[in-house]
Amino acid sequence: MKPLILVTNDDGITSKGISVLIEVMKKIGEVFVVAPDSPNSGMGHAITVDSTIHVKKNKIFKNIEAYECSGTPADCVKLAKHHFLKDRKIDLVVSGINHGLNSSISVIYSGTMSAAVEGAIEGIPSIGFSLDDFKYDAEFSHVKRWIKRITEKALANEFPANVALNVNFPAYSETPIKGIKICRQTNGYWHEEFDARKDPHGRPYFWMGGDFVNREPEATDTDISALNQNYVSVVPVHYDMTAHKTIKDLKRWKL
Amino acid sequence: MKPLILVTNDDGITSKGISVLIEVMKKIGEVFVVAPDSPNSGMGHAITVDSTIHVKKNKIFKNIEAYECSGTPADCVKLAKHHFLKDRKIDLVVSGINHGLNSSISVIYSGTMSAAVEGAIEGIPSIGFSLDDFKYDAEFSHVKRWIKRITEKALANEFPANVALNVNFPAYSETPIKGIKICRQTNGYWHEEFDARKDPHGRPYFWMGGDFVNREPEATDTDISALNQNYVSVVPVHYDMTAHKTIKDLKRWKL
Repeated sequence: MKPLILVTNDDGITSKGISVLIEVMKKIGEVFVVAPDSPNSGMGHAITVDSTIHVKKNKIFKNIEAYECSGTPADCVKLAKHHFLKDRKIDLVVSGINHGLNSSISVIYSGTMSAAVEGAIEGIPSIGFSLDDFKYDAEFSHVKRWIKRITEKALANEFPANVALNVNFPAYSETPIKGIKICRQTNGYWHEEFDARKDPHGRPYFWMGGDFVNREPEATDTDISALNQNYVSVVPVHYDMTAHKTIKDLKRWKL
Repeated sequence: MKPLILVTNDDGITSKGISVLIEVMKKIGEVFVVAPDSPNSGMGHAITVDSTIHVKKNKIFKNIEAYECSGTPADCVKLAKHHFLKDRKIDLVVSGINHGLNSSISVIYSGTMSAAVEGAIEGIPSIGFSLDDFKYDAEFSHVKRWIKRITEKALANEFPANVALNVNFPAYSETPIKGIKICRQTNGYWHEEFDARKDPHGRPYFWMGGDFVNREPEATDTDISALNQNYVSVVPVHYDMTAHKTIKDLKRWKL
């Protein structure tokens, strides 16, 4: 029997990235889509708890059952698991392909990865895919074979419990991708620059912008190091945010 | 010199919880407030990347410089650090007091904790405080002394790098709080039930609801175990989401 694959993303159901992901997944299993009806970039692990969630059937994908949802990527996974597919077993959640990288600290701001992490919380093998190209018409042709390979390996092997995979691809270039590296998340942050402007009524507002700062540019086992060498990076991501090694230090505070 | 303390939250600048937190922090340091202008519960680690952020000076707190912000809790911390206070050193970020628990998996959905984690990403000692009472007029009187104690200890000791503290308090009751326990995050999840309704035009919509499922009810070193015994729970939370122990398992997949 074909595996049941839930597809979602954060760029919205009309983005190019999700259509490429669906194209690859159709070759592997039965595809079911619940995705945001509008862009949700930077949505992090937000969920809709104080407001209503609206859902409509969407017919843009041929022979695929698909729904567009006013909620966040995490809402989409919850709605699929606990409403649309509550009587079936979802074999895999895939999210993306994101238009833009989700390496290093970006994993925590990423709507794409929040959907994959939500899948892991629900106990479903889950993978988020992102490409280092945020253009709406980004070139995805070079990543299809890698997505197929990773997905087939994920279905064939025992998927680690409580974990989702964060897969990032280099942008399209003349140089072929060298392979896949299993990595850890780079320690880095975004140094923001706020662009302060005035609206037509003279009131202040801001645009957030900034530059990524890599705190460990010399490291060779990180996702950014792999991407810089034209490898696909795969980081196992868990939802236990406990800093276990710190517990003994805190006990010394004698709180 | 008094420490500079940035106060934020996710329930919004007019909530009771933030006013109690400011009251305690005024006794310890110089307080600066940047908080959302409306409720941001369940906002996770969302940031405002594709839209504008609006900020207004707010005069509700006597002798305190305060701003209300249209953005998320994480936006508030970024805006304070990289705009309002960019020429000063922030000694501590505190977020809350949240009306409602942020124990176990709720840490990942929590706007309160996203602000604290954002502080940690920026390299600032950061603490999120939450109370097991989501009512708008929740009783906070019993937690003030514990917040003061934890904050003073955090300022007096070396704060662990790359870590924020997730502090949760039992609701007010006749029984006094027994003390503080350093814990790990409980492994659990929300089993959602979607309440499907029709709007006045006959279109479907949903409310998300559900019950928390504790996957390890017998564990004695978790935050939920501490709270159930009427202790304050303190969990060190980091932003490295890498499942380090899983890296070697994935290498066996021969991707």
